[in-house]
Amino acid sequence: MKVSPMVSADATTLCPYRLVLEHVTSRWGVLVLIRLLERPHRFSELRRAIGRVSEKMLTQTLQTLERDGFVHRDAKPVIPPRVDYSLTDLGREAAEQVRGLAQWTERRMTDVESARQAYDEARTPSR
Amino acid sequence: MKVSPMVSADATTLCPYRLVLEHVTSRWGVLVLIRLLERPHRFSELRRAIGRVSEKMLTQTLQTLERDGFVHRDAKPVIPPRVDYSLTDLGREAAEQVRGLAQWTERRMTDVESARQAYDEARTPSR
Repeated sequence: MKVSPMVSADATTLCPYRLVLEHVTSRWGVLVLIRLLERPHRFSELRRAIGRVSEKMLTQTLQTLERDGFVHRDAKPVIPPRVDYSLTDLGREAAEQVRGLAQWTERRMTDVESARQAYDEARTPSR
Repeated sequence: MKVSPMVSADATTLCPYRLVLEHVTSRWGVLVLIRLLERPHRFSELRRAIGRVSEKMLTQTLQTLERDGFVHRDAKPVIPPRVDYSLTDLGREAAEQVRGLAQWTERRMTDVESARQAYDEARTPSR
């Protein structure tokens, strides 16, 4: 299957799927998907697991992923209120691919670091 | 393989591989990798193929991908100057995964659009 030509790939006329790709590969999007692939999380658990994400950013990320159909939000009618987030089937597919890419990147960091060193050395003026 | 916990995943203390992931999934990074997976391109060809990317942004994207070891830059000593960009073996691996994710997203856009419609309708106040 061929990826569309995306000839007018600027911010305003971007192909619709490009925006979805940006959601799942965004900084917090990646981390949320990978965490939820392990198991459902409550908001506070997710926030702790991910680290220094602000409440606002995590809320936004979850809303975006929920609206795209990747994340299911389950608000339990209990006191105190309890909200669980989990992956939908579609979200699981997305998360598996994103995790695959993250793992590949992590595995290949030594090669990336060698490449960077060679690149920087070639550009350092010799004394 | 488990992805690192990334407990302190903010912009300053991000795990090194997270930055590489951002390079290959950046708006222009994705498009450059997918184009170069087809065949090597000259700078001007790449710019035309990708669409409305500025010369500056394309140059920056290519430099980042070259420094990470994904793109090979071949400046031919001819007049007028000719510069070809191609994927390294590492870059080909990255590009194949990124293309896979892009294609998956494109294939699933109908599901994403249905999900969005349902989400928006559930939040539209009825008259």
